This record gives sequence, structure tokens and C-alpha cells, in this order.
Amino acid sequence: MSVEAIKWQNEYVEILDQRLLPGEIRYIPCRDFNDVVSTIKDMAIRGAPAIGIAGAIAMAIGARSIDKEGEEFLVELHKIGNIVSAARPTAVNLKWAVERVERLSEELIRNGVSVEEVKRKLREEAILIWEEDIEANKRMGAYGNLVVPKDAKILTHCNAGALATGGYGTAIGVIRTAHESGKKVEVYADETRPYLQGARLTAFELTQLGIPVTVIPDSLAGYLMQRRMIDMVIVGADRVAANGDVANKVGTYALASLAHHHEIPFYVAFPMSTIDYSIKSGDLIPLEERPEKEMTHIFKKRIVPEGAKTLTIAFDVTPHQLITALITDRGVVYPPFDENLQRLKKAHLK
Amino acid sequence: MSVEAIKWQNEYVEILDQRLLPGEIRYIPCRDFNDVVSTIKDMAIRGAPAIGIAGAIAMAIGARSIDKEGEEFLVELHKIGNIVSAARPTAVNLKWAVERVERLSEELIRNGVSVEEVKRKLREEAILIWEEDIEANKRMGAYGNLVVPKDAKILTHCNAGALATGGYGTAIGVIRTAHESGKKVEVYADETRPYLQGARLTAFELTQLGIPVTVIPDSLAGYLMQRRMIDMVIVGADRVAANGDVANKVGTYALASLAHHHEIPFYVAFPMSTIDYSIKSGDLIPLEERPEKEMTHIFKKRIVPEGAKTLTIAFDVTPHQLITALITDRGVVYPPFDENLQRLKKAHLK
Repeated sequence: MSVEAIKWQNEYVEILDQRLLPGEIRYIPCRDFNDVVSTIKDMAIRGAPAIGIAGAIAMAIGARSIDKEGEEFLVELHKIGNIVSAARPTAVNLKWAVERVERLSEELIRNGVSVEEVKRKLREEAILIWEEDIEANKRMGAYGNLVVPKDAKILTHCNAGALATGGYGTAIGVIRTAHESGKKVEVYADETRPYLQGARLTAFELTQLGIPVTVIPDSLAGYLMQRRMIDMVIVGADRVAANGDVANKVGTYALASLAHHHEIPFYVAFPMSTIDYSIKSGDLIPLEERPEKEMTHIFKKRIVPEGAKTLTIAFDVTPHQLITALITDRGVVYPPFDENLQRLKKAHLK
Repeated sequence: MSVEAIKWQNEYVEILDQRLLPGEIRYIPCRDFNDVVSTIKDMAIRGAPAIGIAGAIAMAIGARSIDKEGEEFLVELHKIGNIVSAARPTAVNLKWAVERVERLSEELIRNGVSVEEVKRKLREEAILIWEEDIEANKRMGAYGNLVVPKDAKILTHCNAGALATGGYGTAIGVIRTAHESGKKVEVYADETRPYLQGARLTAFELTQLGIPVTVIPDSLAGYLMQRRMIDMVIVGADRVAANGDVANKVGTYALASLAHHHEIPFYVAFPMSTIDYSIKSGDLIPLEERPEKEMTHIFKKRIVPEGAKTLTIAFDVTPHQLITALITDRGVVYPPFDENLQRLKKAHLK
């Protein structure tokens, strides 16, 4: 990929404004942690792993501006953490990254490390989170490739590619690994209204990688399954509950349901940081409602008449019963998901 | 409704450019039958019954320009009929209207009626087709109202309202009758990509009628069903096969499938002119593929990168097994559909 979601210069970070793709490549310079938070809130950057990384960077940048020592530094950092975590509610990676950075800071400060040194370490930690994500994506790609048939016609929804992650991709990472391994995969990409991440971002990434891609209206997926034109479905995730229920871009539930009806395998790919072990099942995951304007207008033109309401819930929950397997950076997980995800956690901690 | 899809002046017909709604109300003047054909092809006018009426009008206008007598008149009229029928392939109402006008012409000419008189009669016939459609819609509304629960939350797809018909609506006609009968119905309207008929037209009609409507991304329908927020689904039809299979706007199949999974009643409303008794099952219905540009661009802005393909099949087929009942202007038809549709035909012919 020649286009990266995040570029970290020495003094500031640049975040690609993904809302302008594929027409324009423009970076938003962020000198303050609030600038980064805005890019997350306004969806200039999106994708659970990518906003996790951006969150860690926001913490590192925010830490620099704190003019306190010891515990007082931690109190201020925690305030920043709360603001960063609240930028978007569904993707757990954001909270995960913030907590990881806060835990490290506490440990260092309580071990007598100077604030100056902690600030340096937080920068390193953010970069580590970023690098780990890319590595995790690549392992996920290798594991996921095991379930991809030769010459597979693969349906995906939204964008779970390089732009949504540290730079390789979760669902698209699997497709990419399959392609690189010589399988002649072809992708159908749901355009994914209202933000059109499928049309604008997934198609953009795949054409750059030389992987054949056909963009379809979200409504056409059922038709393609009915006509046996799809061999497997693979999507990313914003949060996975301990029982394997998956919150992901709205429309995922309908796809999983249709795939189940047509006996087409349905996979979800994500790094360990997307699993929320504190949540027992998917109905406890908060689902973000986006501003009305995202539905009423397209490119500033009003498409919904005055007087009509809109509803734009950005995510939905797919119950684990509809999922064939979860593809993680620690391996492919099959049902029973609750048990096998626990096993994964223990193995991960070892 | 204050906005009509068609206005017939003495010398020419004006067709509302529905592509500009809800922002702008502009009529396209059509003096030649080819002008009418263009409005159908380019989707300035759409909706199976509406293009049936427009087709009959195109025939009446086309007939005026024929400078032949007797059988030669019929040959020329048939040529025009072929052009009109070919404007769009899926909705059978267009073919139905053309054939009805041609049959009448043959009968009149063979009975020695003058071409001048035939031309006058064809104008009357087109108006009759139009008026019959409005009457059929109203009867359909009354029949359909029988299955609408009080305070129903109703999901609909695309636009099957006044703008898609002679002026009352099929699916929306049922909703309208329920509303007028005092039921506190609320509507969720799929925006219906790529043409956004739900957002632009259905929401426009319903707000004008004072019926509460919420526009949703097509992908949200599954979520609403999962959360038990929908009591029934009702859509229109472009062609119904003899066994009750329904071709309608792409996405209908997925909705029917999801409704079936959630045990939510799924209804299809249409006039008798939408039934194609010559076709045994839905897989024989031709499904139109629309130009690539309808997916690659929104309001002239490119959303799909160069190098990516698109697929825009405008319709899909819902197998009759997923349909609770068919609502026609001759009554509500329950399974077994093949038998009961035959019975309807015989009753209709009596």
C-alpha cells in the first residue's frame, strides 16, 4: 500500500482524511491530542484497530503537554484517556489502547521513572501497538488463508483493510494473503452506506493490490448468494464478546443471516485487542448512533425530505450461532466460541 | 398528493423528473413517443404501474404521427410498440399496456373504424388504463388494510407509491388506506441504493400525507427485525410469475429472507396487470442490469475508484415460499399461490 492511514512525524502526527478517498489524498496534521480525537470522531480515520492505534498516539501526544509530576501526571493522563476513549463507543480497541498506555504509565511512575522518560516511553508504546497490529494482521492473514478456497469468490462488507488497521488489514489481510499465496480470489465489496467504505476504501485498496474487485449495492448481496456466486463471506469486527458475538458495521448481521440461510461460510477476522472478555454477550455492546446528516445528505445535497426522520445506527450485533469461525492472530477459532476464546486468552497470557 | 408523475396536456404529455426529487419539481415535456421512451429508460419516471401508463401514453402519442391507413397503420404501430416495450425489461406492465393498446387497435381497424377515430380511441384507452390503475390501487388499499395491524411499524423498500403508479400507490397505497382508516401506522423506508427511491420518493410522499416515516440505510433492516421493531414488511412488484414468485427492486429478496427468519409477515402489493401468467416461475423473469455509472458516481462525484468493476442488477426474485400473502386489486391471495392466482384470473375474466 502506498497510502498509509497514519504518518508519524517527529513533532506531530498526520492522519489521512479517508472521507476524501478515492478522489483525493489529503492528510490532517494533528499537533494536539484533541486534533487526533476529532479525526476519530469525524471518521477521517476509522476501523477498530486503526482507531486503537490513533488512540495510543493521542495519549502519547497528550502526555507531552502535561506539566505535572508523579501521581498528578497520572491524574491528568487519565483525564485525557477518558476523552480519547469516548471518541467512539463501539470499537473496543480504542479503550483497550488507552488502558494499555495508562497501565504502563502507572507502572513506570510508581517505579520512580521520571515523567520525561515516561513521555518518551509512551511514544515507543504507541509505535509498538502499531507494529504489533501489523504483525497480528499478517499472522491472521496466514491463519485465515487456511480456510480460503482456491479461486474463491469472497464477499466483504465495509473496510477491514490496511486503512482500517496498522497497515495490512484483518478481513482484507486474509484476502491479501490468499492472493499472495497464488489463489485466484475475487472480491465482491458491499458499497456500505452511508459512509461507502466498501466502494471508496476497500475497492481502492484491492485495486492497488491487483486483486479483482466488484462493488455492489448492499442490497445485491442476497441476490449473489441466491445465485451461488459467493463462496465465503469475511468481515472485520469492532468488538467481540466473550461468547463470540460480533459487533461490526451495520449490515453484517443481515449478511451473516443470509449466508447462514444459503449455507455459505461466514468468517470474522480481528486481532486479540478486539475481544472484550469483560462482556458476556453481544447485546451488552454499545452501538453508536451517528448524526442525522450522514443519512439526510450525500455530498452536501439533501436526499431525505424535511419532515422525515432518519435512523443511522452504525453497527449491529451478529450472534455467534451465525458465524462459521473467528480468525484471530492466535489461530482460527471454531465453536464452541466461549470455551475456545477462553482457551485462547490463557494461551495468550502464557 | 400535490405532485403527479404524469400530466397530460392536450397536445403533449409532461413527465415529472423523479430523479430531481425531493429537491426540485421539474416536468419533462414529451411531444414525441420517443421522448416518453427516454423518460422511462433514464428513470425520470419509474415504478411498474407508472411506466405501464406512460407506455400506453407513448403508444397514443406515437399513433398520432403515423400517416398510414388500415393494416399499414397497425404495422407502424407495432414497430412503435416494440420500441416502447423494450424501454425497460423487468416490469411486465409496460409490455401489458403496449399489448392492450395494440389489441384494441387491431380490433377497431379490422372492424372498419377509421384511423382518425382509432387515434382518438387510443388516447381514451391510455386515460382508461391510467384511471383503472388508480381504482385498482384503491381497492388494493382496502383489501391490504385488512392485514395491517393497529399501530403497525411497517418496513418498505424502494417506492411503490403514488409516483410509481397512476397516483395512489400499491404498497404505499395499503399504508395510506390504513392511515386514513385511523390506524396509527409508522413507516421505516429503506433508502434503496443506488437510486435512493426510498429516501427521495417514499419519504417525500409519506411526509406529504402526514404519515410518520424514518429513512434507514438498506443495511439497517436486519437490525430492526432482530430488535422486533418491525411488525410487517410490504413492497410493490415489477412482475409476478404464475407461481407467485416476485421480481421487485433489488434487496427485496434479502428483506423477504430476513422477514422469514424473524417470522415477520411479508406482503407484496400489485395490480392484476403486474401478473405475468405466461411465466411459470420467477427464474424466467429477465432482470435488468443498469449502467455502471449508477454505482460509480453519486451526484457526478466518483465514489468507486478506477479499475474496480461494479454490478448493478436492478431487481431480484423473491421465491413465493417467503411471501405471506399477495395483495391485489381482486383480493388478498394466500398460498398455494399458483392455484389461487389461477382462480383470480378466472374470476377476473368472468
